[in-house]
Amino acid sequence: MRLARVGEFILIEGIKRNMANKYPPQVIEGIGDDCAVLCPSAEKDLIITTDTLVENIHFNTHWMDYYQIGGRAMAASLSDIAAMAGEPLGALLACSLPANRQREEFDLLLKGITTLGERYRCPLIGGDITRSVRGLFINITVIGEVDRGRALRRSNAKLGDEIWVTGWLGDSRAGLEYLRHKPSLNKEIVAPVIDRFLQPVPRIEEARYLCERVMINSMIDISDGLSSDLRHICQASRVGAEITCSLLPISSGAKTLAKNQGISPYDWALNGGEDFELCLTAEKGVLDYIVKDFEETFRLPITKIGIIVAGQDILLVEEEGRKYLLEPRGYNHFSRK
Amino acid sequence: MRLARVGEFILIEGIKRNMANKYPPQVIEGIGDDCAVLCPSAEKDLIITTDTLVENIHFNTHWMDYYQIGGRAMAASLSDIAAMAGEPLGALLACSLPANRQREEFDLLLKGITTLGERYRCPLIGGDITRSVRGLFINITVIGEVDRGRALRRSNAKLGDEIWVTGWLGDSRAGLEYLRHKPSLNKEIVAPVIDRFLQPVPRIEEARYLCERVMINSMIDISDGLSSDLRHICQASRVGAEITCSLLPISSGAKTLAKNQGISPYDWALNGGEDFELCLTAEKGVLDYIVKDFEETFRLPITKIGIIVAGQDILLVEEEGRKYLLEPRGYNHFSRK
Repeated sequence: MRLARVGEFILIEGIKRNMANKYPPQVIEGIGDDCAVLCPSAEKDLIITTDTLVENIHFNTHWMDYYQIGGRAMAASLSDIAAMAGEPLGALLACSLPANRQREEFDLLLKGITTLGERYRCPLIGGDITRSVRGLFINITVIGEVDRGRALRRSNAKLGDEIWVTGWLGDSRAGLEYLRHKPSLNKEIVAPVIDRFLQPVPRIEEARYLCERVMINSMIDISDGLSSDLRHICQASRVGAEITCSLLPISSGAKTLAKNQGISPYDWALNGGEDFELCLTAEKGVLDYIVKDFEETFRLPITKIGIIVAGQDILLVEEEGRKYLLEPRGYNHFSRK
Repeated sequence: MRLARVGEFILIEGIKRNMANKYPPQVIEGIGDDCAVLCPSAEKDLIITTDTLVENIHFNTHWMDYYQIGGRAMAASLSDIAAMAGEPLGALLACSLPANRQREEFDLLLKGITTLGERYRCPLIGGDITRSVRGLFINITVIGEVDRGRALRRSNAKLGDEIWVTGWLGDSRAGLEYLRHKPSLNKEIVAPVIDRFLQPVPRIEEARYLCERVMINSMIDISDGLSSDLRHICQASRVGAEITCSLLPISSGAKTLAKNQGISPYDWALNGGEDFELCLTAEKGVLDYIVKDFEETFRLPITKIGIIVAGQDILLVEEEGRKYLLEPRGYNHFSRK
């Protein structure tokens, strides 16, 4: 049935029913009034972020189903909460969609959003559903908590800090390229990167794990691409960085696909967006003793890729020791690339 | 200059600079990190709401300039904060716009948003700027505070409560109709209703005034139209209502325009959306002694229009005493009207 025949309030009523009993104690009033009402925990700060996914810019319905689109939208916002080492409390969904979309498509989209949300204890607590003339817009605002004064900023990287990243870099871009070109490759090798593109994982638990064990100085999530996001850390902290090319964690799936496409996998690792991994800096040596346990706990690598230096440039160190200036070539809306 | 030549990060940097020193003490980190960080006041609850304005659904650039569009978007979200009797702390702007829009248009839009925001101490504390394939989407999330346990809900209307509304009903719709048809009418008479459409006022201060002086049982803002929004109160409170037609506050501008268009001004008053006035219920008699002071303070009427009754229907009482069932005919996205 088309949304045109359902009506906004029926959709909202359905979401409200689905969320009953899923609110944490801090959420006093969820969906159903002019505002959601929260009673924040004592001794916590609140963190809040908003992210929009636009059809045919961030996603399309040829490569992804509505469930995956919903999950991806929720993952993008939760990833910002992870980047501050926060715990989500709830989300607001502002969704604009053409009236000729099907009720079933909307329900799948919602299922993708709420399934990932529930996985991270982030129920929908409010929102706004509107019609769009053309194209689907999904905006998700997430509100979360951190211990007072402990939100992890971009602006506190120190000279000499090691730069670490979780997971594999460039996998999401590799997955996208696979879906674009559909080369005939061993499915088993490329399946993980397709999965990373279609169903990214916000590193909420990984970030909490790290912060509880180690003094992290600065952190960001890699949403635009390492070359852009590490730059955000450097600019906010007024420092530079050196990245060692050979240390970049690149999966065998990404390497295979890059080779097949005649592209350097380093390009994807440095400039591919939407990996939603964490990039963090910490004093030399402090992460070493937790690497093994982290990797066993999350079945995910955590890799030292460089060092914070004086200046304002990010330099890429190649194997022969040559250094190149790394330009920010991650995603930038409105920029011509 | 087109946005395509400016780039997302330049736009964000400009907003960040503009917001420096405008944050209330509760905002620890505004624009510039993965999340905004807030340290909520002790003994306060937090309230949060989100609203989207879509080009050619909620507004178009023929009738409104970008400054007015921005103000209208901020007013819609602030109006939800007013409806809970809250005080805003800050806003997140998620804006999607085509790359061929001009930098100057974006700046005007932003100016409209931030000017109204500053008027109500609601600076931008975060956001997300993305490209859209077609059309402008403006989503504003506002976070605010209310005294603990004092958020004014829809769900507490009591049998026998009087129903009151602030301001004039139907003015916004009248203003819209004027801009659609441009009839030749005395400008002085229609100017106020055009103004109400183009530059709606969120009733933040009016709501706080009322709550500090009177025990209000339930409140909502009239964004979809009285017939729909009063129904939200009735449904949430499990009560019915009787509205006396002759009591509906209709301005001379709306009456003049309705007559000129051959339409009943009651239709606009009952079903016209986006007046952003407050509809509230309170025990019989308790508002009477503040009416005069309210009207002098805000130069705005506050009018008793009906009563909460048992049942679930909203009845419209006409002058001869005849009663009609009032159907919800306010705005409903996706519904066929």
